[in-house]
This record gives sequence, structure tokens and C-alpha cells, in this order.
Amino acid sequence: MTSAATPAPAYRRLSVEERRTQLLRVALSLFAHRAPEEVSLDDVAEAAGVSRPLVYRYFAGGKQELYEAALRSAAHELERCFAEPHVGPPTERLARVLDRYLAFVDEHDTGFSALLRGGSVAETSRATAIVDEVRRAAAEQILLHLGVPDPGPRLRMMVRTWIAAVEAASLIWLDEDKQPPAADLRVWLVDHLVALLTATAATDARTAGAVASLLAQERPEGPVGILARGVLPVVGDAAHLL
Amino acid sequence: MTSAATPAPAYRRLSVEERRTQLLRVALSLFAHRAPEEVSLDDVAEAAGVSRPLVYRYFAGGKQELYEAALRSAAHELERCFAEPHVGPPTERLARVLDRYLAFVDEHDTGFSALLRGGSVAETSRATAIVDEVRRAAAEQILLHLGVPDPGPRLRMMVRTWIAAVEAASLIWLDEDKQPPAADLRVWLVDHLVALLTATAATDARTAGAVASLLAQERPEGPVGILARGVLPVVGDAAHLL
Repeated sequence: MTSAATPAPAYRRLSVEERRTQLLRVALSLFAHRAPEEVSLDDVAEAAGVSRPLVYRYFAGGKQELYEAALRSAAHELERCFAEPHVGPPTERLARVLDRYLAFVDEHDTGFSALLRGGSVAETSRATAIVDEVRRAAAEQILLHLGVPDPGPRLRMMVRTWIAAVEAASLIWLDEDKQPPAADLRVWLVDHLVALLTATAATDARTAGAVASLLAQERPEGPVGILARGVLPVVGDAAHLL
Repeated sequence: MTSAATPAPAYRRLSVEERRTQLLRVALSLFAHRAPEEVSLDDVAEAAGVSRPLVYRYFAGGKQELYEAALRSAAHELERCFAEPHVGPPTERLARVLDRYLAFVDEHDTGFSALLRGGSVAETSRATAIVDEVRRAAAEQILLHLGVPDPGPRLRMMVRTWIAAVEAASLIWLDEDKQPPAADLRVWLVDHLVALLTATAATDARTAGAVASLLAQERPEGPVGILARGVLPVVGDAAHLL
């Protein structure tokens, strides 16, 4: 199907931007499945089918620059996972976001662990800043879906601690050979946020407002309905405390 | 009160073990309130009133060895905070442990942040291993107080994610000039665990067993009773989901 006017990709000289994108894509796929210590510029050159000097021409700062550029590109990919229309019950939107997030973790398992576990050579202050920016973006998205543009310190802290808990659960999940299945983990992470919102609403008026608005949008067959029915027999044992 | 037979401390030559302990104590107090980058061996020598060569004699590996030794000593101190008699309502025991933990965070604020925030020169794989050991000890203590020696993967993951959330909350608390007051933060962290246990019990039989046993030990005027009464009006809005 290749006409004389558009040469086959193999023979076409890549533009600077295309070449950079290609090298980044190759680097990210290597950093995704190996510890950063175990990826060399030679590996990147070989996997991309180019010379090592060419890799250096694009990333003059060497491996650290390439790693951070790959990390930045992974961060953008992850932030795209968070995009979700503001339609339908909020916990069902969250479930879709978490499905995409867990697929991302699955696809970048070794690199994700190496970056977040700490003590890695990958962990420079620039890398930490990139990760923190993703955390901030995640928190903003959750607050938008909760319909709380001005959340107050307690609700903001709550969302940020939940994000920390999601990261911790992801690392444990990777350690335990991706058990339980991602769909079960996702159900539990949604339950986790709902439980946290409910408990926080007991002492924070702004959270209470967000929970009232959330509950009004939920359906009996959705995550909150299922959780509420599951919790009823558990809290039956708390009658003596009321 | 100093007799001729026991010379005044200022003139007594310290034993090797005493000197090491003294240097560690001085180092820990410096590392507690400054970023590790901002503490030199000269600072330690000056604060201890000894020569720099003497500090090197005890810590031949230089600053990194001294930092890790100080970190190990802080880790032991923190683990001692977790010790709590197995008597009375479990959430009241947890509240006492958290009060001690938050006092520790308060007393080691800058060092705590530098270590856990990532991207610090302090964060070697050895330092990470010491922190992970504290996390493991904290999880074991919580499971013991919950009376679950064999918790299963879900409850274990739950406890570990709660510990991650406590760390995240501590860092946010330090960032926000230690607001809210530690006692308020502690109440919320206990609520957080109770909420998480309750939600997890909905889908995990072992957690459900632990929650039943926990509730039986709680009192109406304790943390669970206060939380339960606070949550009732919030969940009133969920009737349409049951």
C-alpha cells in the first residue's frame, strides 16, 4: 500500500520529534519491566535499533535524563487515566479510573515498584517532584468528581491519605504476584474511599456535605449500595455502643 | 554530692559504649531538626564537645554510617512507642500509641520529613530497610491488638495501607505547621482505622471476625461509640441504597 510519494517507515528518516518520541517509548518499555539500575543506554540503543551516540545526542544528560524523560512521559500517561466524564454515580466513575490505574501499574510493574519503594538510584528530587505532581493531579480529580472545589484541610488530607493507601496497596499487590485479581482490589479501594468519606463526615461539615451529595447520586446496585448492605450485619454488633 | 571515689561526670572518661551512645544521641538530635544534607560531622563533634577525629573513630564510615546508626536508634525509640498492654478497648490502646507516635513525629519533624518524603540523600536502601522494619513492627502490633495472629492477605493489606495513610497524614501535618492539633489528628486516624475495618469486613470473613471481637470490647464513651453516633446522621441519607 506504500506509494512512491510516501516511503515505507523503515526507510524514512525520523524527524527530531519523532526520534525523541521513539527513544522515549523504547526507554519507558525497558524501565517499566526492569529496575532502573538494570537498564543501560546500550540497551535503549539496541532496542531502538540505533547507535548509542544517537541516544546521547537526544539525551545529553545520559541515563538519568532519559529516565526522567521516560518518567515524565509515564506520568502524562497516568494522568490521562484519571480523565473521566462527570456523568453518573461518582463511585462508578472512580471504579473506571481505578481500572485504568491498575492496568497501568500492571504494565509498568517493576519500574513502578523501583520508583515508589524508595532507596533506588531512580529516586532523585526531580523524580520525586514528578511523582508528587501526579499525586496532586489525582487528588484534584477526585475532589472535582466529589463536587468539592473548595474542600477544606480535613477533606484534602483525607483524599491525599487515600492516594497514599492506593499506592501502598499497589506495591503490596505487585509483591504478591498481582493477587487478588485487579477487579477485586479495585472494589476494595472504592470501598476504602467510601468508608473514609463516611467516617470523616462524622467530624467535618464539608465532608458531610460532599457525602450527602455523593449518596444522592448513587444507585442501589452500585458500589455504595453493595457496600452498605455488606456493612449492615457487621455494624449490627455495635448496637451497645449507640 | 560528688564523693572523691566517683569523679564528677565532666571529668570522667566515657567508656566506648557510653561515648557511642552520647554521639548517637547528639547526632539524632541534629538529624531530627535539620535535613541530613545540613548536618556535618563537624556539627556533631561540636555539639558533643569532642574532636572530629574522635567522631570518625566511632563511626569510621563517616556521616552515612552515623546517619544510619542514628536512624536505627530512632527506629528503636519509635518501636518502643508501640508497646501497649493488651488491656481495655483496643481503640483506646491505639489512641495511646498514636499519641506517642505523633509526639515522636513532632520531636523529629525535619528528619522525619526528609527521610519519608523521598529524593533525599538520606534515602539509601539500608535506610529504607530500617523504615520498612518499623512498618512491619507496627503492623504486627496492630494485628496483635486486634487479636488476629493469622490475619489473611486482605486484613494484612488493610493494616499496611492504614500505616501508609498514617505516614502520609504525618507528612501533611508537618507541612501544615502541625495543624490540626495532634489530639484531633489522632481521633481522625483512629476513626480511619475503624472505618477501614468495617468496610473490609463487608467482603472479608476474617476481618468480620476481628471486627465482631473488637466491637464487643468497646465502650459507648470510647472512640467507636463516638464515631458510630457521628456517622448515624450521615448514613441516614443512604436509605435509598439499601
